[in-house]
Amino acid sequence: MARTRHVIAVDVGGTETKAALISGVGDAGPGRPPTTLAQRRRPTRPTGDAVVEDVAALVADLRAAGPHPVDAVGLVVPGIVDEPTGTGVYSANLGWRDYPFTKNLEAATGARVAFGHDVRAGGLAELRLGNARDLRNAVIMPIGTGIAAALVVDHRVIDAPGEIGHVDVGHPDPCGCGQTGCVEARAGSAAIARRYGERANTRVSGAAEVAARLRAGDPDAAITWHEAVDALAKGILLVAALLGPEAVVLGGGLALAGPLLTDPLTRRLDELVTFQRRPELRLAALGDEAGCLGAALLAINMLEET
Amino acid sequence: MARTRHVIAVDVGGTETKAALISGVGDAGPGRPPTTLAQRRRPTRPTGDAVVEDVAALVADLRAAGPHPVDAVGLVVPGIVDEPTGTGVYSANLGWRDYPFTKNLEAATGARVAFGHDVRAGGLAELRLGNARDLRNAVIMPIGTGIAAALVVDHRVIDAPGEIGHVDVGHPDPCGCGQTGCVEARAGSAAIARRYGERANTRVSGAAEVAARLRAGDPDAAITWHEAVDALAKGILLVAALLGPEAVVLGGGLALAGPLLTDPLTRRLDELVTFQRRPELRLAALGDEAGCLGAALLAINMLEET
Repeated sequence: MARTRHVIAVDVGGTETKAALISGVGDAGPGRPPTTLAQRRRPTRPTGDAVVEDVAALVADLRAAGPHPVDAVGLVVPGIVDEPTGTGVYSANLGWRDYPFTKNLEAATGARVAFGHDVRAGGLAELRLGNARDLRNAVIMPIGTGIAAALVVDHRVIDAPGEIGHVDVGHPDPCGCGQTGCVEARAGSAAIARRYGERANTRVSGAAEVAARLRAGDPDAAITWHEAVDALAKGILLVAALLGPEAVVLGGGLALAGPLLTDPLTRRLDELVTFQRRPELRLAALGDEAGCLGAALLAINMLEET
Repeated sequence: MARTRHVIAVDVGGTETKAALISGVGDAGPGRPPTTLAQRRRPTRPTGDAVVEDVAALVADLRAAGPHPVDAVGLVVPGIVDEPTGTGVYSANLGWRDYPFTKNLEAATGARVAFGHDVRAGGLAELRLGNARDLRNAVIMPIGTGIAAALVVDHRVIDAPGEIGHVDVGHPDPCGCGQTGCVEARAGSAAIARRYGERANTRVSGAAEVAARLRAGDPDAAITWHEAVDALAKGILLVAALLGPEAVVLGGGLALAGPLLTDPLTRRLDELVTFQRRPELRLAALGDEAGCLGAALLAINMLEET
């Protein structure tokens, strides 16, 4: 039987960094989920050096929060990530390129570091602990300002970019990535808020407000929402043709809309599907804790493997 | 050290079935490729029962062709395949649905059967023995009448449909699958021949003749070819965003065009790429033997695992 490990898990987000002291065992099955013993949050500062400095301070703080020595640190970051070498290859928002996170954080903390990608780690947590536990092939897709996916094939999160937010689904709108037609340019939460605002000539606080106006019968909200659903459906169908997932597990802020999102998305998929298996739609279970839990699993798995 | 195995490999194609008696060892590395001792070909007859009957006859014939007892049969078929259960889920051309190939061929031959998908098995052969040997993430994409791909992630062919021929790349043409905009509807070899014929108001024998006319400066051939290349490039970019392959290995009849295909495809990818890593383009090494070699590897791997 696997040992109980004590790890510090850190999820570096675009605006906020979450850290947690977590205990758990390798190969955590249902009924033996990791336990979060303490949590911390702080704003994220750009550049790799600032992130390592702040994460090292969080690690020192959380080391003092529990009675056990810490066995390892799990760190997940956004952007393009090279997991085997522990490198943050690129983040436009946070300003790094080929930054050696594992090496520098190990030097700053003296702890062993497991390094990964935030979306893939969150997907790993949904796969092991959340709403994808029974799935062999799945797409776990958090929808926030950005849209990306963890791709599960044969019960494993594969090491692949999963940039479903940046596949061209045929609409004419430009995207920040340089392409036109991206899923994210119509279905990302910031795009939904911006596009509704332009259409209704007003300002809204975010996609949740657009959802509220949709519930209240606002026709501009209905059009904006329909265009978002259409882009999501077309992106999901592309992935279905290539990877054949049994289910798409929707997470992130937009999934808080629940059936307001999944009902029209199911209908649109049914309209568009031809030869593909239409994947079941599910909502993610772990909310914004998925990234930290996934980082903890990466750290525990690293300890089990060595 | 792994034992040398003697297997019969069968690749059921849409029009022709190829079979071979092959000897090899598990985990065949460079320098220890499988050896083909005898080969047979015959036309493919539709329906699962006819395929099993004909394959059993080929197996009996090849069993008599070599001095060693045969350890197993590897069978690969087109269409939608469920490898773990040994089932041919669906083939429009060959007329089966949920047909139990492994069970029925084992009953007909008395041999153990390893069952797989023709494109994925061909990709496995390119990965272990051909032009993808050094690649960690790759797309191995035979282009014939149909277009599909074996998807390689972390040195493994993943168990996924890989239907890159049926992703929507935004053109208005209908496809036999029921969608519009499919890669195959512009870049499949039958589509190239048909679309050239319509444009030039003539008949050609196939895509190779369109390629010959392109070399000779025919402007209708140039337009048809350019549209095929454009569809292929957009399909490859979708896969690049999701899976990040280092290279795309092009096979099948259309890849016999060589630089006439890869040069404009490289240029078009360079024009379209934004954030994605532009995959290297390569030509497959194994030609139409890839499917049989892959079927042999499936059989040898099955024997090694048990």
